[in-house]
Amino acid sequence: MITDTQFAELSLVLKGRVTRSKSDLDLHGRSETWFANAPPDAVAYPHTTAEVSAVIKICHAQAIPVIGWGTGTSLEGQTLAINGGLCVDFSQMNAILRVHDTDMDVTVQPGVTREQLNTDLRATGLMFPVDPGANASLGGMAMTRASGTTAVRYGTMRDNVIGLQVVLADGTIIHTGSRARKSSSGYDLTALFVGSEGTLGLVTELTLRLHGQPETINAAVCAFDDIDSAVNAVMATIQMGIPMARIEFLDSKSVEAVNAYADTTYPLVPHLFVEFHGSEAGVADQVAMFGEIVQDFGASGFDWAEKLEDRNALWTLRHNAFYACLALKKGCISVVTDICVPISKLAEAVNETADDIAKSFIDGPILGHVGDGNFHSVLLVEPDNAIELAEAKRLAHRMALRALKLGGTVTGEHGIGLGKKDFMTREHGAEAWATMSALKAALDPKNIMNPGKLVP
Amino acid sequence: MITDTQFAELSLVLKGRVTRSKSDLDLHGRSETWFANAPPDAVAYPHTTAEVSAVIKICHAQAIPVIGWGTGTSLEGQTLAINGGLCVDFSQMNAILRVHDTDMDVTVQPGVTREQLNTDLRATGLMFPVDPGANASLGGMAMTRASGTTAVRYGTMRDNVIGLQVVLADGTIIHTGSRARKSSSGYDLTALFVGSEGTLGLVTELTLRLHGQPETINAAVCAFDDIDSAVNAVMATIQMGIPMARIEFLDSKSVEAVNAYADTTYPLVPHLFVEFHGSEAGVADQVAMFGEIVQDFGASGFDWAEKLEDRNALWTLRHNAFYACLALKKGCISVVTDICVPISKLAEAVNETADDIAKSFIDGPILGHVGDGNFHSVLLVEPDNAIELAEAKRLAHRMALRALKLGGTVTGEHGIGLGKKDFMTREHGAEAWATMSALKAALDPKNIMNPGKLVP
Repeated sequence: MITDTQFAELSLVLKGRVTRSKSDLDLHGRSETWFANAPPDAVAYPHTTAEVSAVIKICHAQAIPVIGWGTGTSLEGQTLAINGGLCVDFSQMNAILRVHDTDMDVTVQPGVTREQLNTDLRATGLMFPVDPGANASLGGMAMTRASGTTAVRYGTMRDNVIGLQVVLADGTIIHTGSRARKSSSGYDLTALFVGSEGTLGLVTELTLRLHGQPETINAAVCAFDDIDSAVNAVMATIQMGIPMARIEFLDSKSVEAVNAYADTTYPLVPHLFVEFHGSEAGVADQVAMFGEIVQDFGASGFDWAEKLEDRNALWTLRHNAFYACLALKKGCISVVTDICVPISKLAEAVNETADDIAKSFIDGPILGHVGDGNFHSVLLVEPDNAIELAEAKRLAHRMALRALKLGGTVTGEHGIGLGKKDFMTREHGAEAWATMSALKAALDPKNIMNPGKLVP
Repeated sequence: MITDTQFAELSLVLKGRVTRSKSDLDLHGRSETWFANAPPDAVAYPHTTAEVSAVIKICHAQAIPVIGWGTGTSLEGQTLAINGGLCVDFSQMNAILRVHDTDMDVTVQPGVTREQLNTDLRATGLMFPVDPGANASLGGMAMTRASGTTAVRYGTMRDNVIGLQVVLADGTIIHTGSRARKSSSGYDLTALFVGSEGTLGLVTELTLRLHGQPETINAAVCAFDDIDSAVNAVMATIQMGIPMARIEFLDSKSVEAVNAYADTTYPLVPHLFVEFHGSEAGVADQVAMFGEIVQDFGASGFDWAEKLEDRNALWTLRHNAFYACLALKKGCISVVTDICVPISKLAEAVNETADDIAKSFIDGPILGHVGDGNFHSVLLVEPDNAIELAEAKRLAHRMALRALKLGGTVTGEHGIGLGKKDFMTREHGAEAWATMSALKAALDPKNIMNPGKLVP
């Protein structure tokens, strides 16, 4: 609950940029998946770090929960205000503050989206490659340690955030990291905050590593007879050390979804969507090596996209695959899974998952960033159908346990939020999860920062 | 102080592998640089994680300081027992536990050295590239977030440690990370412990990322007329995105030291030592591009080392450069500096440092991993010469402030230990350093883990 007095106090420091309008609360109380709506009591739109600090000081003094919000595209209920409180929407803190092109880094406000940043960078010859599909905010991507299609080559947010400005639970503003390429100076606070899902503080500035736009890009789609062939081709490609920029798997059900959504006519078999970055000679080399490998696994139906517009069309298909899957079943919602296993266990993990879903009465297209060993099943359920929801959760649960059995993680890129908390003890052990709780308690003793997420 | 009763208790759980012999205490009370000796009260040689846990439980109950020890090659006094206590020497926990060659990872005990690991890996086609020069233990390298000559291509320990087993201050054993290539599962405990210098717990197992041994390697030495030409050539090389495996700078004084130490005859001008990794065509491409760049900066005296024995000879020179510098002045000790700046500021940082040292009455060869923006001056002082020591500290202090002014860090790879604590507030701000202290207090409330290092 936020009282009228508290609301007035917040409104004063934000010069009126805080609202309790029902539409705003509803918008910020939704999630992209199956979680029940949980609107906040108010939504703030700060413009500056000082405003964020002032807002958090008020919340700290009065024990009001604070939930950060970027674009609302997280998939484990990270932004749901399950205890009410104040949603801090960063959409108006979306300035690109400093581009250092010679050092290949950039400092941005958290509301900048990845597409906005790349549009802005275009003329510099640089790019920010991390690409989770959704046009997410960079603050949100840092908070879930996001990755996506290009992590196989360029790393995740863990690798590409080099410094942060953070407002802690009591309103204190700290800076982490530096613009040096490496440092041994003290605890790695940057890494501690990346992936912390807003439970330790709110990020108000990010310094990100940039990469050169590749001289040459080539992309392709190719088809395989079965899951085993496609996935084994991926494993061989990664083990050969081919520096793939993207290597994405779609099972036949995902291809069916994409075809229906985008009016394409790919054959209904498993596919790989791939991309190569490098010099002209380098890309030619990679393409040749990849071609040899996948031929051994019976790849066919190669569809090359050398031109920018063809590549854009191809990756738009892939980016929309989640929505395409949802569209397979009108009005449905999804239970989204996100396991990541050591690459040698990928075929086993995908096959067992596919078998499990095939035996079930619900649909679950499988797709993912298989070069990292990361894949998803989008388990489709009718809203308010408790039987389907229970079945989806059963499948998701088995999938998560499978990842752990194979030495992997229950979440490669979506994070813990509300949806994966039950696996924390299994994945990390009670002692390591207790260590995370001790860190949380040290930095947020009143438990006001996104309470109920990630830690017990 | 460790009492006789405490010693007996430790001896019991370690089956006698704990000692108070003067030679052992002296050996573990030294540092490689200017710090005063500070021997522990006893030295333990555990064989298992369970033994480490039992030992720490005893120390925790009785508030005995615990200091981890690998090979004693840290440079900021990290292993000095300034409050006495128990030194835990990991030299007998040196087993390579599990190599997963298809997943390119390995799990080792902390006493395994990097050379031991690479010798063991030779037949697998894999390697662990992080190379700080000294044949350090991997546990120690993790604890200082070490890097060295190859970080420009393969990253530092931050990038190459994917999981840990840690014994916390109360003896609790935790596991961090997984064998998946990425994860969004909770706080990044692995990154928190890497670089923590034994102040949060003792590492008893490490899982490391491996890399394929390059198909082709080529190395070279080349000479420049002046510092500016050499350093600007490095900046241009990095900004062109040439994936250098190593790019090391030695100023003329360092070359003089190397010549004297290894009986070589390089001209007394600044040099770059470089190495290229890749496919045959890829290396040829890199060599050609690098050649063009450095020609613009007047490089000469190219000395190529395509054969393994020539390369080994070359990198042995570089690895011994620290000892070569010490040998410039018989019986001297050193104040070692370790700044790292954004690459665009490298020339400014090196030039100002060289000018400063030139104006001083002490010698300080300059050398370093300039591809990361990281370089050192080895400031040479007579032992017990307070005037020289004060001058070296003055130069080191100015160098550190210069790094901060240029947006860098006071330590690229050596860590904080005792030597850099005074810069923590300046580098991170009082608030961020207080945040580090809060984390330390949360995990080690009795302050028994390497007390007096890194945090206030």
